[in-house]
Amino acid sequence: MNVSDLGEFGLIERLRAALLQAPYDRLIVGIGDDAAVWRSGGGCTVATTDTMVAGVHFLPRAVAWRDVGWKALTTNISDIAAMGGTPAFALVTLCLPPDTPVAAIDELYAGLRECAEAYGVTIAGGDIVSGPVFAITIALTGDAALDAGDAPLLLRRGAAKAGEIIAVTGPLGGSAGGLRALTDGSPLTNARSRLIERHMHPQPRIDAGRAALEAGIRCAIDISDGLVQDLGHICVASSVGAELHLDRVPLDGDLVAVFGDDAVAMAATGGEDYELIVVGAGDAVARASAALGTSLTIVGCIVSGAPLVRLLDESGGEVTLPSTGWDHLKKDRSA
Amino acid sequence: MNVSDLGEFGLIERLRAALLQAPYDRLIVGIGDDAAVWRSGGGCTVATTDTMVAGVHFLPRAVAWRDVGWKALTTNISDIAAMGGTPAFALVTLCLPPDTPVAAIDELYAGLRECAEAYGVTIAGGDIVSGPVFAITIALTGDAALDAGDAPLLLRRGAAKAGEIIAVTGPLGGSAGGLRALTDGSPLTNARSRLIERHMHPQPRIDAGRAALEAGIRCAIDISDGLVQDLGHICVASSVGAELHLDRVPLDGDLVAVFGDDAVAMAATGGEDYELIVVGAGDAVARASAALGTSLTIVGCIVSGAPLVRLLDESGGEVTLPSTGWDHLKKDRSA
Repeated sequence: MNVSDLGEFGLIERLRAALLQAPYDRLIVGIGDDAAVWRSGGGCTVATTDTMVAGVHFLPRAVAWRDVGWKALTTNISDIAAMGGTPAFALVTLCLPPDTPVAAIDELYAGLRECAEAYGVTIAGGDIVSGPVFAITIALTGDAALDAGDAPLLLRRGAAKAGEIIAVTGPLGGSAGGLRALTDGSPLTNARSRLIERHMHPQPRIDAGRAALEAGIRCAIDISDGLVQDLGHICVASSVGAELHLDRVPLDGDLVAVFGDDAVAMAATGGEDYELIVVGAGDAVARASAALGTSLTIVGCIVSGAPLVRLLDESGGEVTLPSTGWDHLKKDRSA
Repeated sequence: MNVSDLGEFGLIERLRAALLQAPYDRLIVGIGDDAAVWRSGGGCTVATTDTMVAGVHFLPRAVAWRDVGWKALTTNISDIAAMGGTPAFALVTLCLPPDTPVAAIDELYAGLRECAEAYGVTIAGGDIVSGPVFAITIALTGDAALDAGDAPLLLRRGAAKAGEIIAVTGPLGGSAGGLRALTDGSPLTNARSRLIERHMHPQPRIDAGRAALEAGIRCAIDISDGLVQDLGHICVASSVGAELHLDRVPLDGDLVAVFGDDAVAMAATGGEDYELIVVGAGDAVARASAALGTSLTIVGCIVSGAPLVRLLDESGGEVTLPSTGWDHLKKDRSA
């Protein structure tokens, strides 16, 4: 049996089970959420790590190294946002083929630094190794919000309850549109360039995570694998079902302009938007939305029952989509 | 210009300079030591990251996956030891070709878990991505010792002063002997097997780092690149010179038995022993040695002058060795 038979999520579950007897004194959240959380001094550290491999997570000839640097850090920041935390310190590991141009690494670091400054992150160290393929791995730690008794306030995947409302930040599908614009061979237009910008230059929602926490919301995940799949992760972790109204999914305007009828499916299943899904009571969602200024869009509700996402059209009928998201190891994405 | 022209240490210096204007509020130690240190809650976090790539850092057909798991974590623990810290939480990133056998990952995790339990580390999370080559990246955080005023007590590369004594833990060269035993094609003997065990199953010196701190020592580094090269890092960081008496370098017994006359050069320049070099006043070194039970071996002294390591034979004459350690990016190791 190879890891492609298990798939990413099967393998994560297997490794989580293998580690269950490890010492857990100070650990508050371990494997299986957007980030880990542990007690540290008088506070709580939120920590995550994310990798980009050339040819797997980005197309080295099609994108700028500066954008690779930006995106490598933002994917990590988004995990901290999805826990309601505030990012602080990053360790950056580069795996470099020896013939990597120094100019490429200078550009990469310019993008990293730009992102670090935008989100208040300090790059504190890292590692450089040689290898046959370029890869960048970032480990990012941050701080959890604390309540009056110094207990951490967190957004968790497993905190959804039947009857609660599902909302998302931002229009979706821009990143999937950008990936398709990079690879489908059509000539670049302004709209296509903006979609590519959304794919390579995501804006993680630290603000939304904190506003959700302050409004009383306790459940969230970031959209890295795709809305349907990430909502599915909430369902599994919370042992609830979800009804997602596809007609209410907020669509990126350029996505609609360029890809027309495909836009809804791309917004529902495309990964890497790095917006947040939040789940909470209606009044909490309204408070978070008001605090953010930008609105949260209500796209469905949590129901009791099997941990599945039902997709509904505007008349309430159930629909299916050809692919429901991304698994990093499976041979067949639609499996 | 490619990264192989700059080399690992040239590139690290370039990236450190590129990041100097980043926000540094809580940062105590940034790029350029064995680990980074920052304030976290009321305490101080020590953090490091280290990668192993198949075919670069280990030979996948020659070694057991369990040992790869052990070693991947110990290299990180050793960085925390070299700062005088105590390891606590790890994030583990796997880059996996899709045809990786699940049994290999199970074995890898058995080794990781064995090491985590031996050193009190909790594996709190990580990331799994697909890629063309197996790689494991671990980010490890721990806690710095604090003085009565909650300031961190640290072992630093840059704290060596002229007149201080240089001492090392443990016999050296076992790891270099193990690497040579794995690759020179000679039949396995018991001594060669023990050397390979030392190469793949190092024992980082958390105990020695803490004992050194408590004894008043403030300068250390772990031996990952090789004694001469790592001592050179201390010289550069501290703006001092060093005299290293090759005849006093403690030699691994199996190394001498198997490789005879090559043993001294292998112990002086071979990497990955993961013992510590400590630098301090004679009485502090004596106190640390007594506290450890196992002796620290005095191998030289710090002198004023250019940041170079002079190698001396038993009559005090200067000698040269063909290679002085490992650079992960340089084309020519002896350059």
